[in-house]
Amino acid sequence: MRAAVLRGGRIAVRPDVPDPRPGPGQVLVRVRACGICGSDLHFARHGERMLALGRKVEGAPSGASDPVDLDRDVFMGHEFAAEVLELGPGAAEHTAVGALVTSVPVLLAEGGAAPIVYSNTVHGGYGELMLLSAPLLLDVPNGLPPHHAALTEPMAVGLHAVNKSAIRRGEGAVVLGCGPVGLAVIAALRARGVEPIVATDFSPARRDLAAVLGADRTVDPREETAWSAWAREDGRQLVVFDAIGVPGVINDVLRSAPRGTRLVVVGVCMGTDSIDPYFGITKELSLQFVLGYDAAEFERSLRSIAEGEIDVAPLVTARVPLDRISWAFDALDDPDRHCKIIVEP
Amino acid sequence: MRAAVLRGGRIAVRPDVPDPRPGPGQVLVRVRACGICGSDLHFARHGERMLALGRKVEGAPSGASDPVDLDRDVFMGHEFAAEVLELGPGAAEHTAVGALVTSVPVLLAEGGAAPIVYSNTVHGGYGELMLLSAPLLLDVPNGLPPHHAALTEPMAVGLHAVNKSAIRRGEGAVVLGCGPVGLAVIAALRARGVEPIVATDFSPARRDLAAVLGADRTVDPREETAWSAWAREDGRQLVVFDAIGVPGVINDVLRSAPRGTRLVVVGVCMGTDSIDPYFGITKELSLQFVLGYDAAEFERSLRSIAEGEIDVAPLVTARVPLDRISWAFDALDDPDRHCKIIVEP
Repeated sequence: MRAAVLRGGRIAVRPDVPDPRPGPGQVLVRVRACGICGSDLHFARHGERMLALGRKVEGAPSGASDPVDLDRDVFMGHEFAAEVLELGPGAAEHTAVGALVTSVPVLLAEGGAAPIVYSNTVHGGYGELMLLSAPLLLDVPNGLPPHHAALTEPMAVGLHAVNKSAIRRGEGAVVLGCGPVGLAVIAALRARGVEPIVATDFSPARRDLAAVLGADRTVDPREETAWSAWAREDGRQLVVFDAIGVPGVINDVLRSAPRGTRLVVVGVCMGTDSIDPYFGITKELSLQFVLGYDAAEFERSLRSIAEGEIDVAPLVTARVPLDRISWAFDALDDPDRHCKIIVEP
Repeated sequence: MRAAVLRGGRIAVRPDVPDPRPGPGQVLVRVRACGICGSDLHFARHGERMLALGRKVEGAPSGASDPVDLDRDVFMGHEFAAEVLELGPGAAEHTAVGALVTSVPVLLAEGGAAPIVYSNTVHGGYGELMLLSAPLLLDVPNGLPPHHAALTEPMAVGLHAVNKSAIRRGEGAVVLGCGPVGLAVIAALRARGVEPIVATDFSPARRDLAAVLGADRTVDPREETAWSAWAREDGRQLVVFDAIGVPGVINDVLRSAPRGTRLVVVGVCMGTDSIDPYFGITKELSLQFVLGYDAAEFERSLRSIAEGEIDVAPLVTARVPLDRISWAFDALDDPDRHCKIIVEP
């Protein structure tokens, strides 16, 4: 089969990847749509540093420390919708050939559970075929097209961040950064009835998307800070979502946010960052780092999209065949032109 | 009256400070005991930086930004017990001459509320006389001696940190640093029924105090990390209290603590610190900065001491007259000899 692989920091299509064979409890699927995640761009550029940080961290979930060899081809693609082609032993009780499905990106095998994220061995959604775990499959309902079902995963990230924040109606939110993660947070906040939602991004196109997804007010940081925009609101308890993930953002929040603000860090910052704890202490701020989602949030995300509670259509700015994936990785550098690009192998 | 003042980074006794006069709702008190707080040592050494940080932070409580001129004498001392000498107008409905009292360190005046912490004008407990606010006074009950009642304030800091952590029975705690703040945290954790409590400090004397106050296990960081000691426990949800407050501690927690750990930062770090957000994200850690206490916590702290729930006697390692305050500031540099020194003006 054809599959894109990361090799030497570049993504390229290989025509000769052996077709995977489904083991017990697994199914072989044809990938119908796979979104490109910002973390894939990060990994393509900073894979060495990400792996080094992963080795330094103690007590992390085991998946994060699976060894990945960057000198070999790396498979990626974890935001997928796919059609079941072939059932492995025992899979028939969970699904049927022809079903359109999605799944949390985890492959159950005899050796344990492997994340479908970056791997030399486990195929991802940037290829024609991949394996999925029959017990984890979710049918895509309501005739939802694959290129929308593929948004289940990134929207679940936003839902999880909002759940972990424990934000309630009556509290307000500032969302820093309107990339796919920030937009997913905005959609989840809106679905929860939070208002106002103030969103900031340098890109006018991203600010427009934020408004479409549910932001009440959008701010260009070149013209106004999030904090002065927030100060015009009515003094509600504030929850800030950092969906930027670059050094300096956390300390700006500590310095500038109102007393008692809760900060949720959902943007993955790969660099070392500087903070002045004194700022946080003086105002009794809190900071919650979040990652991923659980199975229930993933399922809820799919249902929200399929039932029209969250409209993901505006997020999809391009759909491309597999051989344009390298173009797509580069194109995502321009936030004014692209938000979520879907690969359709 | 005689009062100690901070002048040019040194604490010195001035014999000629004008006696304060109580205004409406105020009382004049004779200070019977005043504890020396670590933050006073910090302020004596790093006052310029603390004030500069205070000016940079936005949205902090107003008291923190009251201007203090380090080129003039600065009054300090916010852990006091005192005897009422004279009542200002309207104070009689709250107290009586001769009462032994303590209070949250706030002076209510016609211009508003001023913290009794560092000030060119508001006297603190490092002097013979000071003003207090009649409505805020708490009678010291049960014949508690002044040099124990003076511990109400620092023990309230620990109680507040534990309350903000929302730690429950069934969860465990690691307390990093067994200075007065760390010990206050340990006492509050013990009173709440948390176990195990693992405490770390380089000083053997401080580790002994930690055990007396309620730590189940004490660790010398030269011999073992808090994390390996914790790993021998039974996998409970962990809450870590940083009562050290020096750069590097937060990132060590992010790197080393188990997944889902909640970190409460109660030690005031005056320096800029480096963190790797990636560590926190991978394990979904959270971080709560805390400061001070509220009036109910202060009152509860006094009651816990007066009723014997918390025994503060072991914390008091010296009681000195006012003219030895400079010696006491220096003596507190040696954690193996001193913990809490009480000034008795």
